[in-house]
Order: sequence, then C-alpha cells, then structure tokens
Amino acid sequence: MTYAPSTSLLGDLAALLGPKGYSADADTIAPWLTDWRGKYHGRAAAMLSPASTDEVAAIVRLCADARVALVPQGGNSGMVGGATPDDSGDQLLLSLRRMNRIRQVDEAARLAVAEAGVILETFHHDALAHGLRFPLTLGGKGSATIGGLVSTNAGGTQVLRHGTMRALVAGIEAVLPDGSIFDGLAPLKKDNRGYDLRHLLCGAEGTLGIVTAACLHLVPAAAARRTAWIGVDSPESALLLLRRLDAAIGNPLEGFELIPQSCLDAVLRHIPQTRAPLSAAHPWHVLLELAGDSDQALGEALDPQLAAAIDAGLIRDVVIAKSERESDDFWRLRDSISEAERAEGPALQHDISVPIDLMPAFIAQNPRRLKRAFPGIRTLSFGHLGDGNVHHHVQPPAGVDGATWLAEHGAAVSGLVYAHVVELGGSISAEHGIGQMKRDILAELDSPARLSALRGVKAGLDPAGILNPGKLIA
Amino acid sequence: MTYAPSTSLLGDLAALLGPKGYSADADTIAPWLTDWRGKYHGRAAAMLSPASTDEVAAIVRLCADARVALVPQGGNSGMVGGATPDDSGDQLLLSLRRMNRIRQVDEAARLAVAEAGVILETFHHDALAHGLRFPLTLGGKGSATIGGLVSTNAGGTQVLRHGTMRALVAGIEAVLPDGSIFDGLAPLKKDNRGYDLRHLLCGAEGTLGIVTAACLHLVPAAAARRTAWIGVDSPESALLLLRRLDAAIGNPLEGFELIPQSCLDAVLRHIPQTRAPLSAAHPWHVLLELAGDSDQALGEALDPQLAAAIDAGLIRDVVIAKSERESDDFWRLRDSISEAERAEGPALQHDISVPIDLMPAFIAQNPRRLKRAFPGIRTLSFGHLGDGNVHHHVQPPAGVDGATWLAEHGAAVSGLVYAHVVELGGSISAEHGIGQMKRDILAELDSPARLSALRGVKAGLDPAGILNPGKLIA
Repeated sequence: MTYAPSTSLLGDLAALLGPKGYSADADTIAPWLTDWRGKYHGRAAAMLSPASTDEVAAIVRLCADARVALVPQGGNSGMVGGATPDDSGDQLLLSLRRMNRIRQVDEAARLAVAEAGVILETFHHDALAHGLRFPLTLGGKGSATIGGLVSTNAGGTQVLRHGTMRALVAGIEAVLPDGSIFDGLAPLKKDNRGYDLRHLLCGAEGTLGIVTAACLHLVPAAAARRTAWIGVDSPESALLLLRRLDAAIGNPLEGFELIPQSCLDAVLRHIPQTRAPLSAAHPWHVLLELAGDSDQALGEALDPQLAAAIDAGLIRDVVIAKSERESDDFWRLRDSISEAERAEGPALQHDISVPIDLMPAFIAQNPRRLKRAFPGIRTLSFGHLGDGNVHHHVQPPAGVDGATWLAEHGAAVSGLVYAHVVELGGSISAEHGIGQMKRDILAELDSPARLSALRGVKAGLDPAGILNPGKLIA
Repeated sequence: MTYAPSTSLLGDLAALLGPKGYSADADTIAPWLTDWRGKYHGRAAAMLSPASTDEVAAIVRLCADARVALVPQGGNSGMVGGATPDDSGDQLLLSLRRMNRIRQVDEAARLAVAEAGVILETFHHDALAHGLRFPLTLGGKGSATIGGLVSTNAGGTQVLRHGTMRALVAGIEAVLPDGSIFDGLAPLKKDNRGYDLRHLLCGAEGTLGIVTAACLHLVPAAAARRTAWIGVDSPESALLLLRRLDAAIGNPLEGFELIPQSCLDAVLRHIPQTRAPLSAAHPWHVLLELAGDSDQALGEALDPQLAAAIDAGLIRDVVIAKSERESDDFWRLRDSISEAERAEGPALQHDISVPIDLMPAFIAQNPRRLKRAFPGIRTLSFGHLGDGNVHHHVQPPAGVDGATWLAEHGAAVSGLVYAHVVELGGSISAEHGIGQMKRDILAELDSPARLSALRGVKAGLDPAGILNPGKLIA
C-alpha cells in the first residue's frame, strides 16, 4: 500500500533536486507519461531527475519514509509499459536520464562503467573510440539507456554469441528500496558471498532496486564482418545449418536471424529502396553474420561451410554481401520487418521463447492450432532462431476490420499462443519483459511455485512496495 | 525459529522414504556429520535420502509444517562447513546422493540433465562417452555432486574460459521452502519473466531451495591440448602475458595458474616423483593450457606468442609439454600444492578475489602489511590469476608451535587479509562460499546494504527459516 505524496514531501524533493532535477509542470512531464508506442498512459505527481547516485538514494529514503511509489524510467523505449506510471497521479516518475556519465573505460581489462542514463548508441560510440565494442544492439539504441537495458535484461541481434545484458554486466550499482546504496561495481569474476544481487537486479524492471550504474564487458572492435543471406526450406533446415556453423566456426558467428518469405514480401512492398537479396523466392530465409579481424579469415571459415551445405541440400541458395553497404542493406531488410508489418495493418505480437530444439515444431504447429480456432488468420514468425526466440505475430483474417477483430478475439488468440509456449516449457516473455502488459497473463500461466517465489523476493526486498508497484507481479 | 522433529514426524518420514531413504542409526549417519577436513562436527535426528524430486518435495512439506530444519548435503566435500548440521541434534540431514540419474544427454544441443546426486567425475565420463565435455573440474571431483556444485556455484581451473558453475547451468529444478517444485529445467536462452530464480538458487548454499536437478551446458570434447610452464618475474608480468594471449588466442586458452617458486619448492620437497619443469628457479611460474581440435593449430597459435613474449622480456623461460604424460605432470605440480603445504605445517587459508587488475598489487602489498603486524610470518599466493582469485595462505613464523600460534593470532591475521580485500572492492569468498566458516566475518565486513538485501531475500523465500539455518547469513 502506497500513498499520495504530501505537499511537504514534494517540497523536500524539490529542494533536494533543484529546478533541473524536479518538475511538476504538466507540459514538461507529459511526453514521459505515455510509452513510445502510445499504448500506456499514466499520471505523475512530479518527475524527479537526479544527477547522482546520492540524490537517487536521498529520493528513495524520503519516499520509503512516506510510502510513496517511484516509477523508474530510462529512455522510455520499453515494449511492455514497464516505465509508465499508473493513472492515480500519486506516483512519482524517477527519470535516470541526467545520470549520463561514462565514468571509466579500462581498455586493458575491456571494461567500462556507465551510469544508468547513458544512451546505448552513445555508449557504442564511446567504446569504438577506445578500439572496443559493446556487443549488444537493438532497434531502440538511440533512446534506450544502460539502466533500462540492465533492468530489462535486454537482448537484440547479437545474443547468439554475446548473451543478453546480464552476460555483459560485470558489476552493478543500485539504490535498494530502503534507500541504501548497493555498490557492486567491482568486476569480480568470482564472488561467492551468497545470493547474487547483480543477477537479481538484472531484469527486475526496477521493482527491487534502482540501477544507477553498471560495469560492462566490452569486446575488441571487429575489423571485418561477413554477412550472408540464405534461402532455406524450413526452420528445421535453418537450425541444422546453425548447429553445423556453430560447431565448425564457433565464436565469429554473431547473428543468425530467421525470416519467412512473407515478411520479406511485406518489407519489399512497404519499405522504399529495398530489393530481395536472392533472385528466387524461398519459404524461409536466414540472415547470418560473422565478425572478426580479417575479411579473408572470415571468408575461409564461412564459404566452404556454405558450399558444403548447398551440396548437402541443406540450403537452397546463398548470397554473400560484397561490401559494407550491401551488409547494411541485408540488415535493413531484417530491421524493417516491424515497420513493414505495421503498414500491413494491426497485428498481435508475441515475444516468446522455447528450447531451441523445439522452435521449428512450434513455428509449424502453432499456426495450425490458431487457424483451427480462427479460420483465415495469418501468422508470421521471425527473429532470433539461435536464441530459441521468435517474434510470433498474428494478423486478423483478410477483409475484416483489424482493430475490431483484435479487440474481440485478441485475448483468446494470445491465450492459445501462450498455452502452447507453456506446454513446451517456454517463456511468455523472451526479451521484452513483463511490465504491465503481461503481468496478469504471467500470474495466470506461470507455475504457483515460481509465482510464489517471485512474490517472496519482492516482499522480502521491498516490503512497502514503493518501487514500480503494479509492474511484473501483482 | 525451528523445532526438534517429533516422533510422529520422524515416523512419517520413515514411512515416506522406506529403509533405503531413512536412517536414524548413529553409525550409518556418523560419516556425514563431519566435514571432510574434520573441522566441523554436527548431530542429526535422522538422515533422509530421497530417491526422487517428489520425495524431496514431500519431505520439505512435512518439515515446513512442523518447522523442522533441513540441512542439504551432496558429496560432503565443501570447504566452509555448509553441509554440516549444527550440534543441537534437532536438524535433519537431507542427502541428495541417491538422486544420481543422468536423465538426458542431447548431443546436438550439447545439453545434459543431471540429478543433484550425480558425482562430477561420473558426469565427466558420461559426457565424454557422448563425444562431449563438461568444462568444470576441481580437486574434489570424485565426491563433489552436481547439486552441491550448483548450490555453491563452484569454480575450479577452467573458469577462465568457461565461467563458474552458474555459467554452465542452462536450467534448474529445485524444491522451494514451502515444498513446491520449481521446474526450470527447460534450457531457455532468453527468458525475461522477472527475477531469475536460476541465478538466485545457484550459490545459495541450500538456504533458499533444494536443487534436485540441473540442465547443464556441454562443450565439444577437446582432441588436443597444449600445456606450457613458464617462468616470470612477477604477477604483473603474468597478467600482461595473460592479456596478450587472451587478445591473440582467445577461446582456446582455458587455464592460467600462477604459482610462486616457494610453492613449487614445497611440492618438490614433499610430493614423490615430481621434478621442476624448468632448470632454473624463477620468482613466479605460470601454468597455462590451451584446448582445441588439433595439436598443430594450438602450437601455431601459442608458440609464436611465447617466442615474442621471450623476445620482449615479458617471460624468462618456457617449456611446452611434449606428451599427455608431461601435461599431466605439470598439472600434478599445481594440484599438489595443498598437500605439500599441509606437509609444511598448519596455515591459514584465504580464498579471496579482487578485480583482476588489482591482484598483482594485492599479492605484493598484503604480505608487507601482515609482516609489519606479525614479523616472521610467511605467505603464499597461488591460483587462478585470470579470475582475480588467489588462494592466499599464511604460515606462522618459523620456530613457533604453529597450531598454538594460529589459535592465538589467526583471527587477527585473517582480519588484516579480509580488510585489504574489502578495501579493493574484492570478495572474502571467491569460490568456496560462506557456509558456517565465514558467516560471521561476512556479517562483520559486508556492506549494510548488501547484508540487508541478503536477509530480505532469505526472509521472503524461507520465512520459517527451515532450509540450512545458521549458514551463510545469521
């Protein structure tokens, strides 16, 4: 149970943070009260923008005393409404964007300490200036912040080799729900002092602590990349190809995306200046990329494998990008799928994962289940096959009013998708998190054992429930 | 607060588990009531040896209802008394050793599901029979079990490349303190459904749940290895060498151990049939190993780097093992350090980590601090430099009665070691855990923020405190 902030508390916060760090002005706050997709809208008594970890700690102490709810926010580019306050007007928006210093880059150790408000793209550039690379990227890189990426355990297109955010976090600094500062920034490769708070805070969506900074692993900047576009018969063939390349090439293989012909068609239809990499249509396509020191070495590693895969009938056709420009064009096709799909009309999006082995079966069977219940609907599955994670989208039957149809049947459709995912031991949120969007479906579908444990952790760490209440777990 | 088991509860447990699964016979239980080093002794009302996850769940439900404490135990090869009950006689020993099935090996996905009681060495052999390798090994492999290794987040000599146990755990099955079964065995590479229970249970020393099985990553069996013994001037030189090799060779570099001449001398003195790999003495030695597909490729990767390091004056001398036998001989020198040291007399052992960059400074400065306070004492630092983890041992001054001296000054000596570690942002337990041995020192030295969070997690998940009470946190 939390309360509305008193005038006296707001006065204390304003005095603490000064005019740059405190605003109750409706126009100033407005852009941050709606998520970027315009799905969630909230209200806030004020927006707090601390400039330091100490200021965050002071805010949390004041709010803990008064039992006032805080909603942490980074770049406001999340997919599940996790950073949007509720509509009571009693919550305080806690923006970390002013904490945007890169405190340290250690080239020899390949580590950097970045504050929560550092924008991903800025961090990429900073790493490159040191001859290094931060190997996590995603569509929202121009607005997503380090704190948000840690708090949502973000994924992206390089997870295959480098893992999700938690694999890249060497240390963490956070303000806990009692206002104390947890300084876990020291990059310890081995640390067995009990429960791992770093992993606990990573992906906790700001419900257990406010991440204020992270120590992050970097990798050497890649001098060369080799990008291939491949036509295949089926997700099974794609998975076999992935396993072969993984065994033969290993580390340099950084990306492996699965794309159905229908997605490619939509991109070609709606996105200007795009062309199909291969001359013929194929049921499925794979976009893969290797990164390394020399183009020649990457070619020697990849090309014979692809030739052998053609000979074995595992792939139907392949083209290798002949320039950086062509690599970028290939990736632009992949990155434009969401935009092209929006142009096709409304769709239900499901960000799900299952064990990698089971993904081809899911992709084949789930559409059949859905079509049995809802004749005429269309499905699209694309994305990170190598991570067992596809974006599984469902479009209404042709000829109906899409928005009306989805309003009526959307929940039932998603129910069939998620039930299938749960059957296969999968996750109803592979990379976007739970936030407010999936909170109730999680409570419905997850096992009682797991839900009870999540609630126990939340109650143990934030007994007053002041950090991002209403998100993740009810 | 927990209670002694009633006669009725013990009867229910005996009926549940049958004669193979229940014993209250003092002689049968005795070997499991003392840790393998003979440092900790306890008592138990009975030893429970369930054969299935369902039996574990039934045990925990009965004990949760009665508020009776359970002490989980695997191979009883831990280093900090974490699996030894207290001396009240009210606790129940819960042995997982009968749960020793390898449920599944998936060669294509390189995953295996092993129950908690599977012994590490058995698991190694089973993986090899499938052409695969489980890349974690340590001295106690003949008795250490998968459940214990997960619960203590075990390390060993291959952490440099493959990480500690948590990096190898793809999924986990555990019985939670309320007796519910958490089935998280499905190997999901991406799963953002809130707090990561897998990482939370890993390293929790059985205080948050009883790990009953794990899904574990395997790697391809290595056809070749290349082992080098190298003389260097200092830990700084060793660290520079590691950084160079890591950048130039990367993945195949699997082991990098630092050994002072004094350790080598002790081994040569006390362990029969050992000889120094290099003809001359050097202040420090590095034992490194590469693993891969072909001896030739490993040689082409390593040898020019070592030649260049000699030319650059970074290393003083090097010898490369010319046979499997010679590789084994090199590793035997490393693995015999503890035994040789015991033969030298009693010593205080500290298993600590600091950020890797700071390790050379710690190794240089800590002995000076100690000798200022305790003239004449001798120190030894050896181990996993690449993990920022050394075993830092302190021997009494020559000529005193070692045991008496340590009884009098040991706590003060360790206090100086741990204070220095904390100053550097390090960990007072790098790989052995906290158990009962370091519980009080953790409570004294760790930050209030972190301790409060650990207590919150424990209270939230195990409010009655029935799982391994008295370990890790008070």
